[in-house]
Amino acid sequence: MNLEKSTKIQLKMRLNSIKNDKINEECGIFGGCSRAGNIAPYLKCALLKLQHRGQEAAGICCGDLKQTLYKDFGLVNSVFRNIKISDIKGSFGIGHVRYSTFGDSRKENIQPLKVTYMGEDVSLAHNGNVSEAKNIREKFERIGEVFLSSSDSEVILKRIIFSLKKKPSLWTYDEVAKCLCENFSLGSYCILLYLPNRIMAFRDPFGYRPLMFASCDEGDFAASEDVAFYGLKVNKMIEIMPSCGVEINSEGYEIKPAYTNKDISQCVFEQIYFASPASNIFSKSVYNTRYKLGEILAGCEDKDFCADVAIPVMDSGLACAIGYSSALNIPFHLGLIRNNWMERSFILPEQKKRTRNVLEKFIPVKSVIEGKKVVLIDDSLVRGTTSGEIIKILKECGASEVHMRSVSPKIINTCFWGVDIPTKEELISYNKTECEIAKIIGAKSVKFLPLDKLRDVFEGDIWCKKCFEENRK
Amino acid sequence: MNLEKSTKIQLKMRLNSIKNDKINEECGIFGGCSRAGNIAPYLKCALLKLQHRGQEAAGICCGDLKQTLYKDFGLVNSVFRNIKISDIKGSFGIGHVRYSTFGDSRKENIQPLKVTYMGEDVSLAHNGNVSEAKNIREKFERIGEVFLSSSDSEVILKRIIFSLKKKPSLWTYDEVAKCLCENFSLGSYCILLYLPNRIMAFRDPFGYRPLMFASCDEGDFAASEDVAFYGLKVNKMIEIMPSCGVEINSEGYEIKPAYTNKDISQCVFEQIYFASPASNIFSKSVYNTRYKLGEILAGCEDKDFCADVAIPVMDSGLACAIGYSSALNIPFHLGLIRNNWMERSFILPEQKKRTRNVLEKFIPVKSVIEGKKVVLIDDSLVRGTTSGEIIKILKECGASEVHMRSVSPKIINTCFWGVDIPTKEELISYNKTECEIAKIIGAKSVKFLPLDKLRDVFEGDIWCKKCFEENRK
Amino acid sequence: MNLEKSTKIQLKMRLNSIKNDKINEECGIFGGCSRAGNIAPYLKCALLKLQHRGQEAAGICCGDLKQTLYKDFGLVNSVFRNIKISDIKGSFGIGHVRYSTFGDSRKENIQPLKVTYMGEDVSLAHNGNVSEAKNIREKFERIGEVFLSSSDSEVILKRIIFSLKKKPSLWTYDEVAKCLCENFSLGSYCILLYLPNRIMAFRDPFGYRPLMFASCDEGDFAASEDVAFYGLKVNKMIEIMPSCGVEINSEGYEIKPAYTNKDISQCVFEQIYFASPASNIFSKSVYNTRYKLGEILAGCEDKDFCADVAIPVMDSGLACAIGYSSALNIPFHLGLIRNNWMERSFILPEQKKRTRNVLEKFIPVKSVIEGKKVVLIDDSLVRGTTSGEIIKILKECGASEVHMRSVSPKIINTCFWGVDIPTKEELISYNKTECEIAKIIGAKSVKFLPLDKLRDVFEGDIWCKKCFEENRK
Amino acid sequence: MNLEKSTKIQLKMRLNSIKNDKINEECGIFGGCSRAGNIAPYLKCALLKLQHRGQEAAGICCGDLKQTLYKDFGLVNSVFRNIKISDIKGSFGIGHVRYSTFGDSRKENIQPLKVTYMGEDVSLAHNGNVSEAKNIREKFERIGEVFLSSSDSEVILKRIIFSLKKKPSLWTYDEVAKCLCENFSLGSYCILLYLPNRIMAFRDPFGYRPLMFASCDEGDFAASEDVAFYGLKVNKMIEIMPSCGVEINSEGYEIKPAYTNKDISQCVFEQIYFASPASNIFSKSVYNTRYKLGEILAGCEDKDFCADVAIPVMDSGLACAIGYSSALNIPFHLGLIRNNWMERSFILPEQKKRTRNVLEKFIPVKSVIEGKKVVLIDDSLVRGTTSGEIIKILKECGASEVHMRSVSPKIINTCFWGVDIPTKEELISYNKTECEIAKIIGAKSVKFLPLDKLRDVFEGDIWCKKCFEENRK
Repeated sequence: MNLEKSTKIQLKMRLNSIKNDKINEECGIFGGCSRAGNIAPYLKCALLKLQHRGQEAAGICCGDLKQTLYKDFGLVNSVFRNIKISDIKGSFGIGHVRYSTFGDSRKENIQPLKVTYMGEDVSLAHNGNVSEAKNIREKFERIGEVFLSSSDSEVILKRIIFSLKKKPSLWTYDEVAKCLCENFSLGSYCILLYLPNRIMAFRDPFGYRPLMFASCDEGDFAASEDVAFYGLKVNKMIEIMPSCGVEINSEGYEIKPAYTNKDISQCVFEQIYFASPASNIFSKSVYNTRYKLGEILAGCEDKDFCADVAIPVMDSGLACAIGYSSALNIPFHLGLIRNNWMERSFILPEQKKRTRNVLEKFIPVKSVIEGKKVVLIDDSLVRGTTSGEIIKILKECGASEVHMRSVSPKIINTCFWGVDIPTKEELISYNKTECEIAKIIGAKSVKFLPLDKLRDVFEGDIWCKKCFEENRK
Repeated sequence: MNLEKSTKIQLKMRLNSIKNDKINEECGIFGGCSRAGNIAPYLKCALLKLQHRGQEAAGICCGDLKQTLYKDFGLVNSVFRNIKISDIKGSFGIGHVRYSTFGDSRKENIQPLKVTYMGEDVSLAHNGNVSEAKNIREKFERIGEVFLSSSDSEVILKRIIFSLKKKPSLWTYDEVAKCLCENFSLGSYCILLYLPNRIMAFRDPFGYRPLMFASCDEGDFAASEDVAFYGLKVNKMIEIMPSCGVEINSEGYEIKPAYTNKDISQCVFEQIYFASPASNIFSKSVYNTRYKLGEILAGCEDKDFCADVAIPVMDSGLACAIGYSSALNIPFHLGLIRNNWMERSFILPEQKKRTRNVLEKFIPVKSVIEGKKVVLIDDSLVRGTTSGEIIKILKECGASEVHMRSVSPKIINTCFWGVDIPTKEELISYNKTECEIAKIIGAKSVKFLPLDKLRDVFEGDIWCKKCFEENRK
Repeated sequence: MNLEKSTKIQLKMRLNSIKNDKINEECGIFGGCSRAGNIAPYLKCALLKLQHRGQEAAGICCGDLKQTLYKDFGLVNSVFRNIKISDIKGSFGIGHVRYSTFGDSRKENIQPLKVTYMGEDVSLAHNGNVSEAKNIREKFERIGEVFLSSSDSEVILKRIIFSLKKKPSLWTYDEVAKCLCENFSLGSYCILLYLPNRIMAFRDPFGYRPLMFASCDEGDFAASEDVAFYGLKVNKMIEIMPSCGVEINSEGYEIKPAYTNKDISQCVFEQIYFASPASNIFSKSVYNTRYKLGEILAGCEDKDFCADVAIPVMDSGLACAIGYSSALNIPFHLGLIRNNWMERSFILPEQKKRTRNVLEKFIPVKSVIEGKKVVLIDDSLVRGTTSGEIIKILKECGASEVHMRSVSPKIINTCFWGVDIPTKEELISYNKTECEIAKIIGAKSVKFLPLDKLRDVFEGDIWCKKCFEENRK
Repeated sequence: MNLEKSTKIQLKMRLNSIKNDKINEECGIFGGCSRAGNIAPYLKCALLKLQHRGQEAAGICCGDLKQTLYKDFGLVNSVFRNIKISDIKGSFGIGHVRYSTFGDSRKENIQPLKVTYMGEDVSLAHNGNVSEAKNIREKFERIGEVFLSSSDSEVILKRIIFSLKKKPSLWTYDEVAKCLCENFSLGSYCILLYLPNRIMAFRDPFGYRPLMFASCDEGDFAASEDVAFYGLKVNKMIEIMPSCGVEINSEGYEIKPAYTNKDISQCVFEQIYFASPASNIFSKSVYNTRYKLGEILAGCEDKDFCADVAIPVMDSGLACAIGYSSALNIPFHLGLIRNNWMERSFILPEQKKRTRNVLEKFIPVKSVIEGKKVVLIDDSLVRGTTSGEIIKILKECGASEVHMRSVSPKIINTCFWGVDIPTKEELISYNKTECEIAKIIGAKSVKFLPLDKLRDVFEGDIWCKKCFEENRK
């Protein structure tokens, strides 16, 4: 028997059950106007720092009046490998790193989307989900409109153009905002629009996705996360509030309302999983949130619960595990080494590629596992397949017991806002007790953060926790 | 002094005056339905045989219900170098080789253009010029439509979709024809349309560009020139008449009228320059036409005119020169060797690349030139810059005299139909006598075919010769 | 001022002083014979797990009698992106990941090196440094031998061939070992040799570099580290002892002596920095070693020393920091997030590329740094430039104090064995007190592990610690 | 039935019998020293003009003291597509276009071959065949030398280095010549050697292959054919005589004897087939030779022989056909259009690729063939398979009769000098009468130039005609 047969058959049996086992990332955007000199190097640097939000494709659109577009599949470094970034002209620009959500993996779906309308260039990049896009697309098709891509970006841009019907240089911020408000008020998305010598940025009315602004020595920029500004000389950092936006030109910037206000509903998973631990999202430090969630979860343990070692599932479980182990005084160890040379798992659009990398991604450190009672800390359990796989690995390394801990509550519902969560039936927590879940994934015990404890971190009514709740309001 | 300085400066002075010195090619199209098995290899083979009609880019769109598109800049061989052509599925398909006419050199302008409308794939490829495209584009933009490319293909396809507003599988040939007739009746173009499991082909009402159909053992196909069918087992070959078209599906084909009849006006340059000498265009052998033009021109020479050697300007002047030399009994020699390893000159979209290759393209054979009275035969003179350059080369090789002959009459007008001819002022024949032209290009004498003699070859009123005529009717 | 001017000038001033600030990696090798089926997928998987040992280039040579070579610059994943690994034939093979040591960055220097001698294929890959290679090369050149690459692999292979002068299939293990022993007995290297249907592996007499062997269900393999065997069904794992080797063919394997015994002298930096924390090198867990070094260093702190947070310099400082913080009960935090999307710093051969990535590589987590007394734990200080840079970043984030700790003693000497350490003068610890060093790098205090404490981890005389010692024995 | 089945099966039957049906090209070389400025653009221009001598691969090696090498598979234009030729530094350089002869198609076999010996760069390019290379290679291997490529270039360069055993800058022309004379005196080759700031060129003692020298305003250069100098300002052109060579440095050049004189024996196929018609080889115009061969062959026809049209097999048969048709007053027509977009047939190293292109390469012009008695003129018949194929095509186009004519005598022997001719048994003329040959290829009649008539063109004893002769002297 060879690799295809012996090892691989066993692996396949395991791997077949491991599918998309994370809530999917939500793309990253960055754009603005550089104070002096070209913006392209800033765009590339920022996208590198937002790369965790999407690794399938990347693109930038730069210029002043005329815009030039560079985009391709692959990581930022690979997309720009053969492009001399310092040669790309223009003070204005927007950039995008993409995790494939809606829209299939065709090159024309990579953002930004650029068009020429009435002789002027316009481009658009958005992250998040545009709930109404499908309906608007169909309505457009019925009146004879044709789409060249299957991306929502084209729907948004078409919708704006169809409403305004004039040269992009004549569009006002208020007109664009009005169009978005009338047509896309139910979305959970942020938009960057690059018009001749102007950038407009919009955060949706609920504020589901984060949008940050920074006025720096180097220029004025908007970004999905403040980590994108790291390395710049920031003079003023502003969180763009839900239903608001910012207009940037070479003279300066103006923060403005855009949509009719709605109840704020910020996605907790931006804090728990999507964002960089170095970011401050929705005015909170992501690292601290995760640490605190770990601490709170520790407080929920039975008095007599003890373990020899607390091991995080990298990378998002790391701060959680530090908080957890510190609270319980359980030794913290990096028992699973992440192989940096593999692509981030679960990020490729096709199912097959997702599963191929799982085993390669984590390499166990036998010396901290063997003979130990291990408590494994993750940010969340979605399908539970990865957890099951990792528990198997830990046991093979000689762990005497493995206890699974999730710092987020049970995910028992799909995302109303379109985050790519599996159906209820595929969710391991749906209609199952912690005991039942433990059995399925092979853990000695499983514990989730109780939903009411989540409020200790995410206070008030400004958070979307719908995926933890059984019945939608 | 180095190359940049010594040789290059001299060359530059010469070359600067050599610009687009040919009437530009008019793209090539091929499409249909293969009887059994995939069409992709047939598309590739056919495009290779139509490559002389355009070398800037190539593309094919293949499938059955669903369509897959492959297109890129470069020669056919280079575009498909890394694609396993036999793996491309589907019995239906259309293909295109592009010479850049309208529409700048962006990848999205390469044809075919494929879109998905109401859940179904449609693609389109056209050659020639669509006079009304610009107006229709502007009209569309005013009502809020946005175009993702700058190609006329998108305008045509949008216009059809906007008229029909229903699933492509429901479009009838007559409906599409009606839409074309109402909107693009002044064009000089041919269209291939690939709908789910159907191909439609249309030739414009004036029949400016050629369109051939062949029913073969291998399938039913339409093509710009019959040379594209070479190698197939052709059972029936039909010239699609002006204002007509053909619909092809897996059951067979039907030749049908499409537009309201207009006066036929076939472009003489298809015979003189664009088409392959192996083709039969507008029911005439291209090779024979060129040979006969050479013969007729020979008949116009003064009785006492004699020369030591007749040399063709390759490739289109070749048959002309054989006819000419044979009629006058002047020895025929290939005094200018074409360097096959250079790209065909004048074909790249940017001016600079056009001029770079001129000198490299022709290498003189000194032994047949030195000390000889040379008569140089070309198909036409546009700006005259290439002719001037070649005459210089011949003299440097020791030609005692060089006489220039053009088998087409003086080109003194731009093309009403959009063929990419320079402005009148750039045309060497505009407002100049043969004597004056000879002086400019450095020839001992220059002679063009008299316009009335052209009628000996192109009889009747079915030919467009507008570029030879001073006042447009 | 633009990016080139404003930000960049400041950065440049910082970055200019940051140069190669780590002891360089020492390449990784893997080879053997797969029991049934092709070896290529095993080679690729193993090289991915050894990628931390070298990221400049990768290659594999596979086959049975005939060998096929695939190699290129780039990470393993990138080198094999367009190669269908399961199509590569052959049960035998060797692979290499390269950090550029001697030998400049030309493609022919990438390993394995394959030649055809007397009609048979032979290939060789080695890691480490071959001290005598330069002399042997010169000696060879004097007798008229010419080298096509500048790699030591060619010198070793040439030397073997020159000694044996017969078909590779006739070479015995003992003959090859004798040749190595007579010519390369002073090196610090491991060799993989792929002869027709045979693999030979050798570890140098001092055992400077590690070499592991594993007999698995899937085949018999030798590797630089045991982490390379992870994922295989290992039946027997053997550390190839210094001066020994192993011969592998399709029948099985034989561990054999190769060189005359010398005093064992294993490189401590394999444990401290080079190897994966998941590996067991020289019979010790790398993770444990680093953890313990942290603990011991903690024990050396003044009684009254305290700090608010212990932060590791990723990745090699991580286990050290956990040990350190745990011993002193200082909160452990990941205050510097590693950007996985950047290439590992200091790894590219040119100085310029090395420095470009430094700032991008670590992103500080402000919320765990601001207002805190930080103790920063690294595995070692070489030039000290990175440390200085990181301290600057921490202070900019609001750290009230930064204390630097190195779990290895002061490096005050270059490597006798050719590890790419800067000259003495460039070493920050050379001739400097901890106080002086602290001032240079901007730390409140600096502490190194005392050399005599190192013996608590690396006991006995079997360790090379020459770079910590002033006078070479 | 689909393409694979219907057309392809028929084609396959035809094509299977068409194999390498030409004597193979013999590579092209160019090198020298540019007077001022970089040589790289001159090298590229020259190689483009020598491209007909080899299309498998191309390379240049440029510099002054240090040399840089650029080489790859593909046509010159494709190899240098992504290289900015004007950026390549250095006044000295050598270049090579390769037709694969000995040495398989591995990248390391592409020329020039560059090595660093005793710290100095040396490179070598040669064309033709080095009869003694195989023996010398084996001798070298027996003493323990190893070769990294399978090209003869490495053997020659090794042999020189082994003889001289000193720094290349110290090698004298006479020493190198002596080494070549002693070791490679039986070859049929030309060599370019690039030493630090010097170029040496050598033509073999028999003068089998041509070597030209030109002192130009732009520099001093050696080349396989004088066509390579076209476009330069040539002040002095010299044919390097058999057994001689030239040394070029920045001061000037010196023509010198190199080998012991032998009987001159110039390859007639350089005139008949290999060289460009624009070249003057062995002091004769290639075009004129071919024309004259056509005339002489015409003179051998029966008095009553007549035909309607004379058609050349492109490209080498062209001048022959003009000469032939002119002598007999048979109308000359280009009845087979060459498709310039296909790669030159018979040029790719693998048999399969050779045959694939045959049908695509020539497109018949029906209007000059149909109903005509055709006489088809080719330069030579080797296997006769192409001729058979073309005759079939002509008949399918309606030719009433096809008569085959070869302007070279029957090829009945393999090439003593290593030109890649098939074995005797594969030669169509071996042991067959013209009548028998006609039957095989489907011609009405076949006629070869009688061997004694060849002397009317190639006078004296200085020509190698061994392949036409039964018994070797």
